[in-house]
Amino acid sequence: ARNGYPEVIYGEGKTVEQIVAITEDLLTEGKAILSTRVSAEKAVVLEQKFPDGIYHKDARCFVLNPSSKLTDGYIAIVTAGTSDIGVAEEAAITAETFGNSVKRIYDVGVAGIHRLFANLDDIKNASVVIVIAGMEGALVSVVGGLVDKPVIAVPTSVGYGTNLDGITALFSMLNSCSSGVSVVNIDNGFGAAYNASIINKIREGE
Amino acid sequence: ARNGYPEVIYGEGKTVEQIVAITEDLLTEGKAILSTRVSAEKAVVLEQKFPDGIYHKDARCFVLNPSSKLTDGYIAIVTAGTSDIGVAEEAAITAETFGNSVKRIYDVGVAGIHRLFANLDDIKNASVVIVIAGMEGALVSVVGGLVDKPVIAVPTSVGYGTNLDGITALFSMLNSCSSGVSVVNIDNGFGAAYNASIINKIREGE
Amino acid sequence: ARNGYPEVIYGEGKTVEQIVAITEDLLTEGKAILSTRVSAEKAVVLEQKFPDGIYHKDARCFVLNPSSKLTDGYIAIVTAGTSDIGVAEEAAITAETFGNSVKRIYDVGVAGIHRLFANLDDIKNASVVIVIAGMEGALVSVVGGLVDKPVIAVPTSVGYGTNLDGITALFSMLNSCSSGVSVVNIDNGFGAAYNASIINKIREGE
Amino acid sequence: ARNGYPEVIYGEGKTVEQIVAITEDLLTEGKAILSTRVSAEKAVVLEQKFPDGIYHKDARCFVLNPSSKLTDGYIAIVTAGTSDIGVAEEAAITAETFGNSVKRIYDVGVAGIHRLFANLDDIKNASVVIVIAGMEGALVSVVGGLVDKPVIAVPTSVGYGTNLDGITALFSMLNSCSSGVSVVNIDNGFGAAYNASIINKIREGE
Amino acid sequence: ARNGYPEVIYGEGKTVEQIVAITEDLLTEGKAILSTRVSAEKAVVLEQKFPDGIYHKDARCFVLNPSSKLTDGYIAIVTAGTSDIGVAEEAAITAETFGNSVKRIYDVGVAGIHRLFANLDDIKNASVVIVIAGMEGALVSVVGGLVDKPVIAVPTSVGYGTNLDGITALFSMLNSCSSGVSVVNIDNGFGAAYNASIINKIREGE
Amino acid sequence: ARNGYPEVIYGEGKTVEQIVAITEDLLTEGKAILSTRVSAEKAVVLEQKFPDGIYHKDARCFVLNPSSKLTDGYIAIVTAGTSDIGVAEEAAITAETFGNSVKRIYDVGVAGIHRLFANLDDIKNASVVIVIAGMEGALVSVVGGLVDKPVIAVPTSVGYGTNLDGITALFSMLNSCSSGVSVVNIDNGFGAAYNASIINKIREGE
Amino acid sequence: ARNGYPEVIYGEGKTVEQIVAITEDLLTEGKAILSTRVSAEKAVVLEQKFPDGIYHKDARCFVLNPSSKLTDGYIAIVTAGTSDIGVAEEAAITAETFGNSVKRIYDVGVAGIHRLFANLDDIKNASVVIVIAGMEGALVSVVGGLVDKPVIAVPTSVGYGTNLDGITALFSMLNSCSSGVSVVNIDNGFGAAYNASIINKIREGE
Amino acid sequence: ARNGYPEVIYGEGKTVEQIVAITEDLLTEGKAILSTRVSAEKAVVLEQKFPDGIYHKDARCFVLNPSSKLTDGYIAIVTAGTSDIGVAEEAAITAETFGNSVKRIYDVGVAGIHRLFANLDDIKNASVVIVIAGMEGALVSVVGGLVDKPVIAVPTSVGYGTNLDGITALFSMLNSCSSGVSVVNIDNGFGAAYNASIINKIREGE
Ligand SMILES: Nc1ncnc2c1ncn2[C@@H]1O[C@H](COP(=O)(O)O)[C@@H](O)[C@H]1O
Ligand SMILES: Nc1ncnc2c1ncn2[C@@H]1O[C@H](COP(=O)(O)O)[C@@H](O)[C@H]1O
Ligand SMILES: Nc1ncnc2c1ncn2[C@@H]1O[C@H](COP(=O)(O)O)[C@@H](O)[C@H]1O
Ligand SMILES: Nc1ncnc2c1ncn2[C@@H]1O[C@H](COP(=O)(O)O)[C@@H](O)[C@H]1O
Ligand SMILES: [Mg+2]
Ligand SMILES: [Mg+2]
Ligand SMILES: [Mg+2]
Ligand SMILES: [Mg+2]
Ligand SMILES: [Mg+2]
Ligand SMILES: [Mg+2]
Ligand SMILES: [Mg+2]
Ligand SMILES: [Mg+2]
Repeated sequence: ARNGYPEVIYGEGKTVEQIVAITEDLLTEGKAILSTRVSAEKAVVLEQKFPDGIYHKDARCFVLNPSSKLTDGYIAIVTAGTSDIGVAEEAAITAETFGNSVKRIYDVGVAGIHRLFANLDDIKNASVVIVIAGMEGALVSVVGGLVDKPVIAVPTSVGYGTNLDGITALFSMLNSCSSGVSVVNIDNGFGAAYNASIINKIREGE
Repeated sequence: ARNGYPEVIYGEGKTVEQIVAITEDLLTEGKAILSTRVSAEKAVVLEQKFPDGIYHKDARCFVLNPSSKLTDGYIAIVTAGTSDIGVAEEAAITAETFGNSVKRIYDVGVAGIHRLFANLDDIKNASVVIVIAGMEGALVSVVGGLVDKPVIAVPTSVGYGTNLDGITALFSMLNSCSSGVSVVNIDNGFGAAYNASIINKIREGE
Repeated sequence: ARNGYPEVIYGEGKTVEQIVAITEDLLTEGKAILSTRVSAEKAVVLEQKFPDGIYHKDARCFVLNPSSKLTDGYIAIVTAGTSDIGVAEEAAITAETFGNSVKRIYDVGVAGIHRLFANLDDIKNASVVIVIAGMEGALVSVVGGLVDKPVIAVPTSVGYGTNLDGITALFSMLNSCSSGVSVVNIDNGFGAAYNASIINKIREGE
Repeated sequence: ARNGYPEVIYGEGKTVEQIVAITEDLLTEGKAILSTRVSAEKAVVLEQKFPDGIYHKDARCFVLNPSSKLTDGYIAIVTAGTSDIGVAEEAAITAETFGNSVKRIYDVGVAGIHRLFANLDDIKNASVVIVIAGMEGALVSVVGGLVDKPVIAVPTSVGYGTNLDGITALFSMLNSCSSGVSVVNIDNGFGAAYNASIINKIREGE
Repeated sequence: ARNGYPEVIYGEGKTVEQIVAITEDLLTEGKAILSTRVSAEKAVVLEQKFPDGIYHKDARCFVLNPSSKLTDGYIAIVTAGTSDIGVAEEAAITAETFGNSVKRIYDVGVAGIHRLFANLDDIKNASVVIVIAGMEGALVSVVGGLVDKPVIAVPTSVGYGTNLDGITALFSMLNSCSSGVSVVNIDNGFGAAYNASIINKIREGE
Repeated sequence: ARNGYPEVIYGEGKTVEQIVAITEDLLTEGKAILSTRVSAEKAVVLEQKFPDGIYHKDARCFVLNPSSKLTDGYIAIVTAGTSDIGVAEEAAITAETFGNSVKRIYDVGVAGIHRLFANLDDIKNASVVIVIAGMEGALVSVVGGLVDKPVIAVPTSVGYGTNLDGITALFSMLNSCSSGVSVVNIDNGFGAAYNASIINKIREGE
Repeated sequence: ARNGYPEVIYGEGKTVEQIVAITEDLLTEGKAILSTRVSAEKAVVLEQKFPDGIYHKDARCFVLNPSSKLTDGYIAIVTAGTSDIGVAEEAAITAETFGNSVKRIYDVGVAGIHRLFANLDDIKNASVVIVIAGMEGALVSVVGGLVDKPVIAVPTSVGYGTNLDGITALFSMLNSCSSGVSVVNIDNGFGAAYNASIINKIREGE
Repeated sequence: ARNGYPEVIYGEGKTVEQIVAITEDLLTEGKAILSTRVSAEKAVVLEQKFPDGIYHKDARCFVLNPSSKLTDGYIAIVTAGTSDIGVAEEAAITAETFGNSVKRIYDVGVAGIHRLFANLDDIKNASVVIVIAGMEGALVSVVGGLVDKPVIAVPTSVGYGTNLDGITALFSMLNSCSSGVSVVNIDNGFGAAYNASIINKIREGE
């Protein structure tokens, strides 16, 4: 990882022994360490080995030495449904571990658009907005049309039939009729937060 | 066609001679005749042969003896962009030829959602709503969440890249998080209007 | 949900605790409550918590306080095979919970078309027809050509090889050569019934 | 080509000079020669060079020395729509050039199923049935359920939107719920007739 | 089923109770009964209930009262690999239950083409040839080029990566450069044999 | 458009008369006007009507009243090949019209990676980096791994065969193993520049 | 290009002026220059500008200063049909320009497998074999099973319907049941020859 | 297998009894025997039956009598990530069993390109290079641009979302902008090594 940046371990497909070994290695550098895609079973072992670490269950992330100082500006993390929260929490924990303030605005999908409008000020005042949605992903276009901050869209694999494991949400978001939207891979909460953090830090003058 | 229904000729892939022949045949039955997907070149010939007929250029429809009595309730035809108007006019002319009142509400896509809200009453007061959109089709979910009338969605092939000639809009609409939405084939303005007409006529007690 | 409409909980991907909590919340409003996509295991807990509720096993639906008054007109629910019955029952229970009369006409696929003709009167006399089919979905076109009521088609994921988990049935139905057909997502019995209910209620003058 | 079989030239992508050269070469063997996928422009040249040959415009076939003796049993060639006739004629001319009697039964798609039933005896009495359809290809399942002769299905690229240039019709036909159906490539009238001819000749005891 | 034809039960997705019930029903008609896609677990129950029946493990078929008289001409069933044998046996048992002689020619794929040539006479002397192959399905084109009997091709889902669960073999076979080939659904040994049986019976003068 | 932002007209699928009319309308507001996807033929008419405007041929953009003050920080626009330059210029002209300094770094694809390294300082010193590539899009991952600024990736439809009109480049970029990358639609140079401009302006304290 | 290697210009999407400019630039280095994908129209200009150059029409290649010394070992270039010859010639001219001996063995597809066997010795004695085929690409597996030299397979976009512009041939080849086969992009004769040349030169001890 | 070549058993989908039987059969020929895709459970049985054999756990290969003499030149096996090592070891064990020297260069993906450059000499000095990568497969283009040896690319199914089980990596590699690259099926380490071995042996003058 770059200077001053936390180290990141992608836990999927790694044994817990491998994660422990990499973590011990990195600890010597004294930096924050974020492990993503860590299952509850693996977390038990990590918590024993590293009692200072915290396992975030919804986010499936294990964190050591997170940044203690948070930014003034914040990243808004917006989801369409409750099923998108796992991806949203991966984004939120990543952003916080990297030292960003985060505001969570969940379950404001367009089927009940009044809930979105009730939260609009919080979304508009963010430095960057992450919008997370499955199914048809329409929330991204609506939010993109209402705010003039960078919007990073995360399609999720939530849905069935023609949602095609997230491909439909992805293609919808790439075709968004609203400007100022860019997109990351399906379910990639980490990637969205990493991007948002770089942008948020610009505002902070870092 | 069924009793009292107009006859419909699908003009695509038929020569103008074929359309003329079928039209002459049907005229003897004294019913309304709607020819869809008629190019401007073919229309010139049809207008000569059948001076009573009217060619609707945007809709690419040629109409003879349309219904003179229109329903009280109306079908709202809503589009996201101006490029969707060709499909919308095919729907509108079809609906009118079948004897329905129509209200056109064009270019109210979610990128500028205030225009949609400005027209909301007209949409809510319709008997049936046809929503036509290309790109990511988000307008369908927003409208579907706001009205409690049947919504018939028409994906259009408008867009580029990942819109995949309308497949992305189609799949989005089928995944709509709003209830009360059903979908027809890409660019199928005729089919949407045919469905809407059946439903609208139920309300009229026909 | 809208005034007078039942509340609907989409059970897939929710824990039984979440379903219980939402149900308790909604009960205070005294409306009908329909939970779809509820597994048999979750149903055991729901039946204990809410002894007044009924679990419909084939439909995988749990219902509280369904509408006691049913419409005069009815919705015909037609399936091609026996394997489509799960989706059909989701549609039937939804329609009934919303206060509609329903007529079930199962296993009348076109491979033995005489069975379809034997039931044709019941289909023609419905207010709305829901046709549910997997594999190649040909039943939709045949029914669509025979009735002049709105036909709502539900592709199912029943089949193997080139049925592609329902995509083939879906695309077939969208390409139906018969007019008056609109389509919902694969296996979406609920969505079809929701649409059919709105239309059926129009006839009732609601 | 095998003994006694006509020679076949696939004209697509060959220059007219190439077709002439191959034809002259084959003429020395004194067999029937069938050139398929021959455009009207190329046909002009072929007719000049080989005045004995006949160009079948709808079929886009050029034929020299067709079989003069036709089989007793016949091949029924059935189409859903008029736009499928080009493919049907390719099949019909191929079958006749190979010495088969052919009965053409066109435009009997399931949207108006009475027309199919009006022609059912002619279909049932054939030795082999070729069914040609675009869009959703439902005609194949209906015919397959009604006859106990081999049915060879040809999907056509007729349609738009989700017909995907014939892939939807193809997949529908492969998923046909009726037994006794096999399928050839999209628009492959020649291939269907070649198969049908082999089977029809078995009946003739050849 | 048609007069004199065995009855067929498609076992997939049916409970063993359902299969037993249908079987008992059909037994009263005194015809042969073939149940396909029957798992080993279900077979145990069927063998207890119907001690006269035989379960064919590789074919996953349960058979009662198969035809005792076999045709003179035979159906050749050819596979590319050993992994295709399950599908081949479904075809073989179906064909035999319907009263056809069968010759099994397994594991003669083109990677070792000498094995194919060693068996060529048996293939050429058949009335109909069924070719079954996964991966790239090249065997179909080679056999199709060598024999002048009808070839029915069955793609199998054997392979990995770009075989796409059999779609690649399917598309290969539909594009076969050899004439006289038609195709059925992926893994559909039953369907191929049903077709082959109809054709083989023609030769027998049935 | 938002306050102070230029107005944007998407020229594709609009007649030149429509573009002229919209332009005249917007001119009254005195803002910058950017028309994208304007063909050379349409440009001739626009240049006559609006002699102050400039047509950028490679970018296919027509610009009126561009921002005269440019940002201190700059956007680096990097392409893999020369065929990507059309898309790159659409991005560059958009960015400049919106008041951003731009540095063009073209034809530095990974097949000759030394050219990329020769330009690395210019890329690293940018505020935001836009990477534009067709074919396999590998350049995005290499640049993403070398810089710690936000990288906005634009897949282009350049290539043939398995590039699938840009889908392959798109999916590659979404799967980039490097962090800090987000993606826009195929060939969407405008969208990338719009995003980059918002981010670049943050740095400027706007 | 590497030391001693010819320079290659990919002509597709370049204007003839651009090709001339690049060629003049490269000429100063005194190396062989190969321009691929050059249309007949562009070739006229190139032949005027560079009278020493030779335009290979079938290959669509323009060559200056080709290698005068050819290798002892040769590359066999094998095609299934005549329509594959354009791609084959691109491969052949590339290989020769790079100094390789080439043996052309065209039109030996598996539909008439005897022609392949008649040429087998020439194929077996090559250093490397390039196999070029469209449609189902079966020739690759047959050749791959018969030779123990490296086989480089080139799928072509020749065919219609389910050949999907070459994707079917590509996937077939990647699934080849024969060992020793690797694959390049659809229609990429140049790429196959470039690979073959590197391997052939190894044998020569270069 | 060919003279002097090891025998290869593809273990996937074979029972351990089948593998034992084939192995015993082949042992009589006294050649090396390589079984690929052997699970740990099956390996236990094989190790008991054939105590001289060695099971390579990461490679999932069981080897008897491997070649004792290794080539002078070596095959470089390069992976992008650690998750690609399973495929890489299948390639490595295959290559060694066939008598090739191998150099393993793992985890040098382009996200940290310095690690690749640190190993560049080892890659450049190989006779053949196998590059194995999942996700976007960018490593192939970078390596292909830096070396002038044959590069055989293996896409892996490692990744999520739009990697589509390896299809994205496959298509990327086929579109590689670098020359001298050919590709094998997804996860096909064996096939890559088989190809590489043939080429490496050419250099050895075999
Ligand atoms: N949840 C995630 N999704 C996508 N990429 C991730 C995720 N977590 C970590 N990464 C990436 O994976 C890298 C670490 O990979 P590794 O070296 O295999 O642990 C990090 O630097 C990130 O770029
Ligand atoms: N293995 C099979 N694959 C495809 N279709 C089959 C198979 N076995 C039986 N069938 C078909 O399924 C029908 C019986 O279906 P069912 O009424 O659901 O038992 C038979 O008439 C056959 O047409
Ligand atoms: N016909 C072709 N197909 C694929 N790649 C080619 C072809 N011809 C040339 N190339 C590649 O394109 C490069 C030249 O690209 P360019 O610099 O755009 O002219 C060459 O070095 C080759 O790698
Ligand atoms: N891991 C592998 N992936 C792909 N093909 C393989 C693999 N291992 C072996 N093979 C091929 O499978 C053949 C043996 O197949 P079989 O006769 O079924 O054991 C070998 O000759 C190889 O061509
Ligand atoms: Mg915005
Ligand atoms: Mg609604
Ligand atoms: Mg109808
Ligand atoms: Mg039948
Ligand atoms: Mg044949
Ligand atoms: Mg970076
Ligand atoms: Mg070989
Ligand atoms: Mg190279």
